[in-house]
Amino acid sequence: MILEGLVTTLPRADAPKETANIAPMGPIVDDTMSRLILRPFTSSTTYRNLKAHGEGVFHVTDDALLIARAAIGTVRPCADAPVRLAEVVRGVILSGACRYYEFRVRELDDSHERTRITAEVVHRGTQREFFGFNRAKHAVLEAAILATRLHLTGAEPVLAEFERLRVIVDKTGGEAEHTALRELTDHVRSFAAQADGRPGA
Amino acid sequence: MILEGLVTTLPRADAPKETANIAPMGPIVDDTMSRLILRPFTSSTTYRNLKAHGEGVFHVTDDALLIARAAIGTVRPCADAPVRLAEVVRGVILSGACRYYEFRVRELDDSHERTRITAEVVHRGTQREFFGFNRAKHAVLEAAILATRLHLTGAEPVLAEFERLRVIVDKTGGEAEHTALRELTDHVRSFAAQADGRPGA
Repeated sequence: MILEGLVTTLPRADAPKETANIAPMGPIVDDTMSRLILRPFTSSTTYRNLKAHGEGVFHVTDDALLIARAAIGTVRPCADAPVRLAEVVRGVILSGACRYYEFRVRELDDSHERTRITAEVVHRGTQREFFGFNRAKHAVLEAAILATRLHLTGAEPVLAEFERLRVIVDKTGGEAEHTALRELTDHVRSFAAQADGRPGA
Repeated sequence: MILEGLVTTLPRADAPKETANIAPMGPIVDDTMSRLILRPFTSSTTYRNLKAHGEGVFHVTDDALLIARAAIGTVRPCADAPVRLAEVVRGVILSGACRYYEFRVRELDDSHERTRITAEVVHRGTQREFFGFNRAKHAVLEAAILATRLHLTGAEPVLAEFERLRVIVDKTGGEAEHTALRELTDHVRSFAAQADGRPGA
C-alpha cells in the first residue's frame, strides 16, 4: 500500500529546525508500519537531505492544505507549520499531524533518478485523529500531485482536471480545501504564464 | 464538511442485530462531531428505519471494500461484517470501524425526496486508527458513489470512469481495493446487462 503523507528532513544532523524541508511523499508501507520505502527523485531536497543525514520523520495527516502547500514549496517550518524536535532521531515533527513515524535510513539505492530508500521506523506517536474519508480533501491531494508533475504534463490538462476537482471541493469541502485549490490553481497559472514567457501571476 | 462513512440502523428498537441495515452515507459534520446532518432519500432503508426508530450509529472507517459492498447491497451484518450492540442507543456498532458515533434523531424533514435528518451524537468511541490518505481507497470510494447513481447515469460513463480509477488502484492499492473495484465493476456490468434485457452477470 502507498500511504500519502509528509516527510520532514534536515540538511545536517545539527541543523536548526527552521531549515527542515517538508515534502509530500507516498512511501510503500505494510500494516505494521515498521518500515517505509521512500522513492524521492535525485533532484529533490528530501533525497539530498537523506543522503547527507539519514534520518527523518514521516507524518500521516488529513491536512490537505498543508500537503498542497508543501507540494508547491510554499511552507516554511515554524513560520507556516509548527514543528518540534523529534524524540529519537535528529529531525522535526509537524505538531499538527495526526501521527508521526521517526525513521532511520537502512538502504539507499540511487542508481536511478527515482531512488529507493528503505527506512526503519524507530519511534512513533499519535497526536490526533484522522478526519476520515472526505472527497474534497482527496480532490486537493490529487490536485497537489498533478501540480508536482507540471513540468511533464504542461498546465492545460492540469487546469482542466482542476475544474472537475473543484466541483467535488465545492460540494464536500470546507474553507481550507477551497483555499488549497485556489493556491494550487494560482501556482499552475503562474507556471503557464512563465512557460509562455509572460510574467508570472 | 461532508464525512463519508457508514450508518447502521435497525428497523425497530427491539430488532435483532442481524436485521441491521448498513449504508454508506456522507453526513454534514463540524469539528465537534456533536451533530450529524444525514440526507437519505425517502426510498432508502436508512430513511425508513430512522423514521420508525430514530436511533443509529455513524462510523468512520478506512475500509473501502466494506463501503463498496454496502453501496451495492452485498453486506450482511454479522455474516459479512462483525457487529456488536451499541452502548447507549438501540443499534449496532461495526467492530472493524475506526470510530463510531451513536446518535438520536432530533429533527426529521421528509418534505422532499432527499430528506434532512438532524441527529445528536449521544455517545462515541475509537476502535483503531484511520490508515490515512491512500489514493486507491479513495478511488474505490468514488467508484462506490458512482455505482449508487447508475439509475441516473447508465452504465457506460461509469465503466469509463472505472478504467481511470483502476490505474490508481493498480498503482497505490492492496488486495482489498482490487477486490472492491472488481466487485463494483461486476455490479455495473450486471446492471448494464439487465438494462439491455439480457440476464445479469
